[in-house]
Amino acid sequence: MVGDPQECAGGPGASHLGKCRPGAGMAADIADQPAVFAGLLDSGAPAIAAVAAAIAAKAPRFVLYTARGTSDHAALYAAYLTEIRLGIPAGLASPSVVTLYGGRPDLSDALVVGVSQSGGSPDLVEVVRVARATGAHTLAVTNDPASPLAEAAELLVDVAAGGERAVAATKTYTAELLALLMLVEGVRAGDGRLPAAERAALERVPRLAAEVLADTTAADLAQRYRFADRLVATGRGYAYPTARETALKVMETSYLPALAFSGADLLHGPLAMTDPDVPVIAVVGSGPGGGAMCDVLARLTERRADVVAVGPGEIPGAPHRIPTPDVDERYAPLLDILPLQRLAFALALTRGEDPDAPRGLRKVTETL
Amino acid sequence: MVGDPQECAGGPGASHLGKCRPGAGMAADIADQPAVFAGLLDSGAPAIAAVAAAIAAKAPRFVLYTARGTSDHAALYAAYLTEIRLGIPAGLASPSVVTLYGGRPDLSDALVVGVSQSGGSPDLVEVVRVARATGAHTLAVTNDPASPLAEAAELLVDVAAGGERAVAATKTYTAELLALLMLVEGVRAGDGRLPAAERAALERVPRLAAEVLADTTAADLAQRYRFADRLVATGRGYAYPTARETALKVMETSYLPALAFSGADLLHGPLAMTDPDVPVIAVVGSGPGGGAMCDVLARLTERRADVVAVGPGEIPGAPHRIPTPDVDERYAPLLDILPLQRLAFALALTRGEDPDAPRGLRKVTETL
Repeated sequence: MVGDPQECAGGPGASHLGKCRPGAGMAADIADQPAVFAGLLDSGAPAIAAVAAAIAAKAPRFVLYTARGTSDHAALYAAYLTEIRLGIPAGLASPSVVTLYGGRPDLSDALVVGVSQSGGSPDLVEVVRVARATGAHTLAVTNDPASPLAEAAELLVDVAAGGERAVAATKTYTAELLALLMLVEGVRAGDGRLPAAERAALERVPRLAAEVLADTTAADLAQRYRFADRLVATGRGYAYPTARETALKVMETSYLPALAFSGADLLHGPLAMTDPDVPVIAVVGSGPGGGAMCDVLARLTERRADVVAVGPGEIPGAPHRIPTPDVDERYAPLLDILPLQRLAFALALTRGEDPDAPRGLRKVTETL
Repeated sequence: MVGDPQECAGGPGASHLGKCRPGAGMAADIADQPAVFAGLLDSGAPAIAAVAAAIAAKAPRFVLYTARGTSDHAALYAAYLTEIRLGIPAGLASPSVVTLYGGRPDLSDALVVGVSQSGGSPDLVEVVRVARATGAHTLAVTNDPASPLAEAAELLVDVAAGGERAVAATKTYTAELLALLMLVEGVRAGDGRLPAAERAALERVPRLAAEVLADTTAADLAQRYRFADRLVATGRGYAYPTARETALKVMETSYLPALAFSGADLLHGPLAMTDPDVPVIAVVGSGPGGGAMCDVLARLTERRADVVAVGPGEIPGAPHRIPTPDVDERYAPLLDILPLQRLAFALALTRGEDPDAPRGLRKVTETL
């Protein structure tokens, strides 16, 4: 409970924050993100470019991502990028096909990418190991370059986010997003190196991230949801992973049932569940994904849902708004999640929970 | 409200039930399922075998399914079957890649399968149309052989479930499951025809379905959830689509927030949300997927969640049970969903809702 004396949760770094308080670790993780972005764009770039060049040379016929939890949302983002930016079909693999049923899909000209903060979940390691043994190209994207996943794969991208203090992933998520974006754009370039315009756009991201994190709108909004008993998050296209990650953060730290749907899927059934007592977080960018949310917002308004829009503009039908920078929708996932992490964090504190140490969870989740 | 005089909801067939009552349409749809299974296995089999033989001859390099809502869960089941039974990589496509961002992934040796009860959602039609124009093999699986989706695709499987009376899909879902299973097994056989052992196993399904529907355990259990304010459904492997479809049915008809997770993903975060006030429906078969649920059930027991197990055996850690037949996990999705449809139906009635006409929903959902 807030104010109870307790030991510092989280790992290295929590202690230097002085007096230990609930959420100190998650707050520090969230605050690290502009620096993690800057580090990846600077010292991390050559290694990512080398991996991108290797993948471009292999010219995979299709790409399968495998991941769990938060990393699954980074993988989903990467799947959109892979199809839209590279024209290579991409999807998310179900590990149980391989680990439970002994399925051996023919992956001989595929690239299989395991995405995992810890690199320690046995099912993902097994999927990558089997894929590699049967002729697939394999890549690990992880925050631990000495992990079993990193050892199992032929190629490695270290997302270099530093030790994460809280159980709920924040900076490792956005580091995965940026590393995967740099990778895809490097493959698109062919030689692995980011084109000048892409590089210039990305170099704005650390400063924009710091600006978004300085805004208190999202944290203040947590008061409004103190007594909510559920929450819905929605977005389309590039914004859909942001909606899913928002829902997971709220579940992990505040124990609210939080449901995420693509805006299109929301209309295919779950819309019936919404009413004035259901807060809806709608991620609405300034591109095609945001445009496709107009009909969704109109239907939510019919149902008198309590909508907050996350994005750069005024949104009809959304009485509340969390402002985020006006960037191409391809970059928005790096920034839009930041205030939503703060919202989840503040909601946990206002509900008397410690977001650093969610009940029932472990930092490395081992599933078979 | 229950007992209010009202017009019959739903379409053709509702009126012959005599006195019109809330849920009459959905009840009739649910009761139709054994006959729909029998029809597909009998008069539907030759057409499905012909399509299966055509697909086997094309030998696609990979298969992409595209669907929304309930049909997305049938597509997920088919993706498992495709990878496990055929050794062909499979995934679910995000329509927004094509419809919103103009992505044109190279699908020249792929099979793209649109699954839709109505065959009328413009985004799915567009995905299939673009895929076909760029050289993919395409297949529509639908309950309306005259629909735009059926016209857009090169190949057609009519799931022949008859007109569905309620907005919430029940018999079209299980018809899609069986049609996709017959298709995959036909492709596996090479000539499209089901091997004798497979055919014998499937011919038991209509009778088993009728037996499951005669059991009232699930409907009785609805009383227990009358005042629940959320619900979680979980399963692994072949049972995961059943968990997702259960959650959607509950959301559509009872307006409860209902969350579905693969058993593995549940441990990666959402587990924190569970407590003694959260009913958990765990689909636990008698094969590898069910076996992998042991750890999940143990962790749920630690969190004192209120677990009901759906499956053929006694399950440690699950004080409540909905019995279903002991079949190979590959066939279980055809049967396990039946009592869960009845549970959703009974829960809606006991909460005073009309499951035939969920608030805010339309039978054909048009998303772009």
